[in-house]
Amino acid sequence: MNNEVLFVLLDQFTAHEMPYLSEALSSDGLQKLETPKYLCKIVAPTTEPVASIEGFRIMPDYSFDTMPTDYAALVVIGGFGFKDAPAALSEIIRKAIESRKTVAAICNAVSYMAAQGFLNTVRHTGNGLQQLQMWGGDNYTGEKLYINEQAVRDGRIITANGSAALEFAKEVLIALENDTPEHVEMYYQYYKQGFVELFCKQK
Amino acid sequence: MNNEVLFVLLDQFTAHEMPYLSEALSSDGLQKLETPKYLCKIVAPTTEPVASIEGFRIMPDYSFDTMPTDYAALVVIGGFGFKDAPAALSEIIRKAIESRKTVAAICNAVSYMAAQGFLNTVRHTGNGLQQLQMWGGDNYTGEKLYINEQAVRDGRIITANGSAALEFAKEVLIALENDTPEHVEMYYQYYKQGFVELFCKQK
Repeated sequence: MNNEVLFVLLDQFTAHEMPYLSEALSSDGLQKLETPKYLCKIVAPTTEPVASIEGFRIMPDYSFDTMPTDYAALVVIGGFGFKDAPAALSEIIRKAIESRKTVAAICNAVSYMAAQGFLNTVRHTGNGLQQLQMWGGDNYTGEKLYINEQAVRDGRIITANGSAALEFAKEVLIALENDTPEHVEMYYQYYKQGFVELFCKQK
Repeated sequence: MNNEVLFVLLDQFTAHEMPYLSEALSSDGLQKLETPKYLCKIVAPTTEPVASIEGFRIMPDYSFDTMPTDYAALVVIGGFGFKDAPAALSEIIRKAIESRKTVAAICNAVSYMAAQGFLNTVRHTGNGLQQLQMWGGDNYTGEKLYINEQAVRDGRIITANGSAALEFAKEVLIALENDTPEHVEMYYQYYKQGFVELFCKQK
């Protein structure tokens, strides 16, 4: 199996939702992994640089046309670009779900999934039930499967709200079996609590 | 005064340390600000794409040679590239401090500041006192000014450890008077505690 984790970015993506996950896949905290289990790649509508909200421009590794059909996971990052999302994005996600790949979405990417009808048979969370209903309209019938948690993993589908970059990373890392659950939890707690709380406070 | 906040990136930078700050400067959480107080720009040794640990390539807005001399703040992001840092970086930071600009450093960027002798007269934190001593050697005589906090702001100098992206953002936002201290605190708590803890739990 191809070991690439594809991070899907649209224009005006929210940069903070990506790196806790991508760094854990690429580094042991002290150095870059020489033989990581997974490789992180950027997918965008075209191969032109794609800009975050703050105007930082990232170079895509693949466009929607050149991305591989075989990969380990599709991670759709949130942002303000989903109202103008190319129709191809829906097809890419549909194929990923149908081929039982790990599919993860955070923040407005979850709302987009709701609007495309992808969250009607899977437990999930997002930026509040109300937002999913608003974006989803008649295409969203998953209300009873909505859970008020920072991140929810149901099989191979992971969803999270926009304040949950760390919880999102944790659930995707577990789904991908990137490390043992204990090590993933340590990584999570390190960033959630912080170095000083964990290591410098008198207990 | 030029209103640009310059984020300095070296090869193998740690991407998670940047966006909580840059997003708060650029967005109100619902949309991109039309007239932000500050503009975020990327500075790297050259104008070639600079790669994060996970191999994401960001396009610099300026190289060390083309960056403006007038700007609002210099934010040096951590990573694994400081052992090979160009000598010009030290000069850039020295000039920023001398001209009383806001200078912020996180994670290994703080250790680099210690090694360049920039932390000997200012209260600061970092990735543990031991690491600053190790990197700093004889150039670091600021031991008594080291504080065990996630982030420390002393005048216009802000330092933070690598697990403190949020606290780092908070202190820089306050130093830059990007918003009221109350709004900056709300932004911080939103991401620190998370949407579910703040808004969905029965109190």
